[in-house]
Amino acid sequence: MHNQLVASPFEDDIERPPSVTWTVQCHKPVRYDVVVMPNLLDPANPALAEAGTGAGTDKSAAPRRFVVVDANVDSIYGDKLRAYFTQRGVVHHVCVLRACESTKNLDSVRRIFGELDAFGIDRRREPIIAVGGGVLLDMVGLASSLYRRKTPYVRVPTTLIGLVDAGIGAKTGVNFGEHKNRVGTYEPPVAALLDRSFIVTQSSRELSNGLAEILKIGLVKDSGLFDLLETYGTRLLDERLQGLTPAGESAAREVLRRAVQGMLEELQPNLWEQELERLVDYGHSFSPSLEMAALPGLLHGEAVTVDMALTTLISFKRGLVTAAERDRVLAVMRELRLPIWHPACRPDLLGRALAETTRHRDGLQRLPLPSGIGSAKFVNDLGLDEVTDAANALAGYAERVGAR
Amino acid sequence: MHNQLVASPFEDDIERPPSVTWTVQCHKPVRYDVVVMPNLLDPANPALAEAGTGAGTDKSAAPRRFVVVDANVDSIYGDKLRAYFTQRGVVHHVCVLRACESTKNLDSVRRIFGELDAFGIDRRREPIIAVGGGVLLDMVGLASSLYRRKTPYVRVPTTLIGLVDAGIGAKTGVNFGEHKNRVGTYEPPVAALLDRSFIVTQSSRELSNGLAEILKIGLVKDSGLFDLLETYGTRLLDERLQGLTPAGESAAREVLRRAVQGMLEELQPNLWEQELERLVDYGHSFSPSLEMAALPGLLHGEAVTVDMALTTLISFKRGLVTAAERDRVLAVMRELRLPIWHPACRPDLLGRALAETTRHRDGLQRLPLPSGIGSAKFVNDLGLDEVTDAANALAGYAERVGAR
Repeated sequence: MHNQLVASPFEDDIERPPSVTWTVQCHKPVRYDVVVMPNLLDPANPALAEAGTGAGTDKSAAPRRFVVVDANVDSIYGDKLRAYFTQRGVVHHVCVLRACESTKNLDSVRRIFGELDAFGIDRRREPIIAVGGGVLLDMVGLASSLYRRKTPYVRVPTTLIGLVDAGIGAKTGVNFGEHKNRVGTYEPPVAALLDRSFIVTQSSRELSNGLAEILKIGLVKDSGLFDLLETYGTRLLDERLQGLTPAGESAAREVLRRAVQGMLEELQPNLWEQELERLVDYGHSFSPSLEMAALPGLLHGEAVTVDMALTTLISFKRGLVTAAERDRVLAVMRELRLPIWHPACRPDLLGRALAETTRHRDGLQRLPLPSGIGSAKFVNDLGLDEVTDAANALAGYAERVGAR
Repeated sequence: MHNQLVASPFEDDIERPPSVTWTVQCHKPVRYDVVVMPNLLDPANPALAEAGTGAGTDKSAAPRRFVVVDANVDSIYGDKLRAYFTQRGVVHHVCVLRACESTKNLDSVRRIFGELDAFGIDRRREPIIAVGGGVLLDMVGLASSLYRRKTPYVRVPTTLIGLVDAGIGAKTGVNFGEHKNRVGTYEPPVAALLDRSFIVTQSSRELSNGLAEILKIGLVKDSGLFDLLETYGTRLLDERLQGLTPAGESAAREVLRRAVQGMLEELQPNLWEQELERLVDYGHSFSPSLEMAALPGLLHGEAVTVDMALTTLISFKRGLVTAAERDRVLAVMRELRLPIWHPACRPDLLGRALAETTRHRDGLQRLPLPSGIGSAKFVNDLGLDEVTDAANALAGYAERVGAR
């Protein structure tokens, strides 16, 4: 019984003075909402101003909000954002932060603390609001989880990858020394508000980058999502997921809904990543090393796609994926304008990548391999010769289809 | 059911595009051991080297430990500490940190990160070890809770207040700007190891300071603990809790055991301080402001004692405490060589202190008042005139007994 606290004296050695042990056991309940919410910056829409505030909130007091926004997002949406809060009578301070890998550090977090102190908020009623891509959300999440030993915060992702991945989970962090995300917490927001209109200003390449993480969910657990990408991938890109046609609107809605659903199903039982066999790690076994080696050649989702292409071929050679399935998968990647190969895919790099990933997963590969389309299995026995064979086959395929 | 994840579409306004909401719910299990463990630095005792390592640990690998130690503690126990690990064959790095309010900041935490990166540890098998007083433990706790999104750590408190308070809970933190502990987490250690031999080098005043927090537990929830302090207080101080006589040994053991038991009983159901009515806040209603106003005149436990003396008189005037109980309480405080009054106890300061505490407790006083000896009740209706009356009565009492 977790509320029982009993001191158990024990004497494990008659020579030593007696020891006493208490075992403290409890659990921390976590709950947060992920909400698809169009027109977030429309002053008629209360969602952003009221997100994360409980029913007991005193509505008569003048509300205050501390908002952190990515500098690029601010240059496009800043005026609209300020007008939103002004028109709703919310006293606000907008902290504009440059958010990129080189500013993703403790100094930026410290700056947020300083501006929070200067503005002042009631941390029980006035959640911090973060508006930006994954890097910005990671930094504000970390600052929020630390400020006064946790101040609730709201995530508003403004990138496609943020809408389906970085914006809806619990990870926060900044880089330290040479290491990405070396310092951070698992602290989910009180709410994540998903408004896909923000992504209309992303480049086509960035949209493809986001679709890579959506494709991942389709490949490992939702063949219906894969089918949608196969049928509507080009249209989604052409319409920037903004629903310029009725079919494009339905597809964009359904693709996002299924991607978020799939991601949350995987996150909820494993929010602190204590289980090391993670389906969402698909495409993330070789890609970390590949992404670093190819810098700045590959975006994250692009490196993930090359990894997924490679592992699809490994699965084919193991008989887990048919030739027809393999060809469909590679064709969809190309439809989504994603690379399936990169010159950095050399056996030595792939070998080092696998070793690094195995170390990271506590000594076992725990490698998710696609099994057909829409499901996966974990293996621990992948050999380097298999990887090299698959890489060669992939290079040949890429050559044939002109993707190399 | 917390594992069910259902997207609930709803249309709260027919004019607006439909919204979809997912509610993610889960809980994080927490478990840690608090262990009374004499002779921690005896190389024959495996406790420190093995603390926080699971049964699955590969004992054949050469173990490594990253140890952070307070500079003062290092000057006294540093050689013994290094010899301990060396003799047990543990590869170790000792990070020596100056730990005081002026170095309790993010720069110190950053330094820990840097040395951790340079040394390298397997965070699943090699917990960080923190050896020092409350300030050191707070800083290392924060660094550990952030490093690689949490690296387990072990607390070894070396002060009396650390043994019964700062060393056994979950709070971590550093100061930021003008604010104490403005930045931090709730992250308990995997184990806290309590060896009272460390405190033999503390000054008598620091020991009294620690006894104040023990007295607090006695007053609000354990009259037997109070009785022990009443009977053995002077002896405990004279023997520095080292058990120089059989009676002194029994008393020191039992006082520490009951203090830890009482503190953990209060912490376990409220580790994240979501419940704002906290018995352990007794003595911590007026003392934060008093401690600041008297700087550097009062140690933390001294300010807490003045607060407890004041609130004992408030309880007496309310009929919650008899004259005899009041006199016993004040006499024990003096036995423990703690102050019961301070010139900063002016009505204006006490009024501001109460307002600040009320704000901190979300708008209600939630003030624990002793009810007899060994229990307490919470009130929300304390008037400033009551506080002033009690302060005057306390000043008079202190005058009479020569404690002013």
